[in-house]
Amino acid sequence: MEKLNRNSRVVIITKILIENPNKIIGLNYFSEMLNAAKSTISEDIVIIREILDKLSMGKVETIAGAAGGIKFIPKIGKGESQKFLENLCKLASDYRRLVPGNFLYVTDIMFDPSIISKAAIILSSFFDGKDIDYVITVETKGVPLAYEVAKCLGVPLVTARRDSKVTEGSTVSINYVSGTSGKIQQMCLSRKSLKTGSKCIFIDDFMRGGGTAKGIVDLLKEFDSELMGIGVLIDNKLSTNKVTRNYVSLIDVVEIDENLGVKIVPSDLFK
Amino acid sequence: MEKLNRNSRVVIITKILIENPNKIIGLNYFSEMLNAAKSTISEDIVIIREILDKLSMGKVETIAGAAGGIKFIPKIGKGESQKFLENLCKLASDYRRLVPGNFLYVTDIMFDPSIISKAAIILSSFFDGKDIDYVITVETKGVPLAYEVAKCLGVPLVTARRDSKVTEGSTVSINYVSGTSGKIQQMCLSRKSLKTGSKCIFIDDFMRGGGTAKGIVDLLKEFDSELMGIGVLIDNKLSTNKVTRNYVSLIDVVEIDENLGVKIVPSDLFK
Repeated sequence: MEKLNRNSRVVIITKILIENPNKIIGLNYFSEMLNAAKSTISEDIVIIREILDKLSMGKVETIAGAAGGIKFIPKIGKGESQKFLENLCKLASDYRRLVPGNFLYVTDIMFDPSIISKAAIILSSFFDGKDIDYVITVETKGVPLAYEVAKCLGVPLVTARRDSKVTEGSTVSINYVSGTSGKIQQMCLSRKSLKTGSKCIFIDDFMRGGGTAKGIVDLLKEFDSELMGIGVLIDNKLSTNKVTRNYVSLIDVVEIDENLGVKIVPSDLFK
Repeated sequence: MEKLNRNSRVVIITKILIENPNKIIGLNYFSEMLNAAKSTISEDIVIIREILDKLSMGKVETIAGAAGGIKFIPKIGKGESQKFLENLCKLASDYRRLVPGNFLYVTDIMFDPSIISKAAIILSSFFDGKDIDYVITVETKGVPLAYEVAKCLGVPLVTARRDSKVTEGSTVSINYVSGTSGKIQQMCLSRKSLKTGSKCIFIDDFMRGGGTAKGIVDLLKEFDSELMGIGVLIDNKLSTNKVTRNYVSLIDVVEIDENLGVKIVPSDLFK
């Protein structure tokens, strides 16, 4: 490949970093790909690091040693996070989202890439640097958010299912009490899906009573694995009998009533 | 904001374009954000467009008119696509993936962001420019791939479920014959999830007989909506009674047998 100028090199390095969050990329990779000396690439990276830092658009970290290189850690600045969450609250608190039983229809939000990709960057920043092996979720609405958080953290996603499928091979299943329905439910996980001794975080769309989170703890125990943290998009503050208080939410439902309407606010972490 | 130099500007513009695929962004947005004249931003964009084009890393298109601007269309070059798919075939054809019933365990692949994000760029390129309103899938294994394809195409994802949930409001359900189990199954979709008269593509992990795809056509009819295309990661070429031949696959299973092992090859589109 012919030599490129600095402008062109920083475009390519930026693109590769952003598409591979939390993955260590050796300077040799860029050096060979772009036909430039490692010292030149290092200068390019300083430019990228400084401007991303200045605009609160993420961190470029240098990892020393033989397996070293650089990695990109997605971040969104405080001001932009607040603006994003306020808009999300407005969108989610539309009274037409109320469905019978005082539930909130948020499926469209949970499957909208332009919302979920940003929410995941904000949520993942609470778990960055915690040396996580997997993100775990339960099907279905939380899958895109959990997937995006896993991507931000550079780890695979594992998804527990309501029942076992023939394509999953042998599975482990546990029972738990759902906060939504109050019923005893089942969740299953393929034996092949998780290495024993793993550290996981649980990401989901909604936190109500926390029954599902408790189920995840039990399920992980079957794999000799540990739950290191919980993150949800929406916390229902009206569910009072919470099994756990140890989780992070982005926005909180503080009122949901057929007559009074819906009130949702950014969580205390963003005040 | 102080004036930035060209190097810094192209980093920021590249980042924003890549994080918002297929979304039109006005030059004014960059001009205000970066405190630079529109003519300067235009020159920056030419640099980005040319180098991405040269390295087959995506297209930057200019949209004229009042609602105009630029948009980024993710692409992966032919050589890199082939290399990626060959590696994927190697990974997927490991004999330890065989589970009883001659099924292939690929759940880990379907939930691995580093694989699925690339596969989605390749898959989405077959549907780009087709004026799609939604990507649709059926829970659960296909959700990350369908989500990423939706992101590449700049549209929302819609996910049909096996049974209706209280949080979905009123739903439409149809029955179909599953290719995997041969059983009659149900899929449901919330009334709120899809606007009538929409154009959709169906993205899934596996194509066997095509029963699920046929179910999707029936389901979309209930919303006066139309299926414009089908894309899957893996096609099982051993399923001979296919309901449809009108789909795109990335890799094809050509042998799967407890004694003979598994053989998977890149689909004919990549030869």
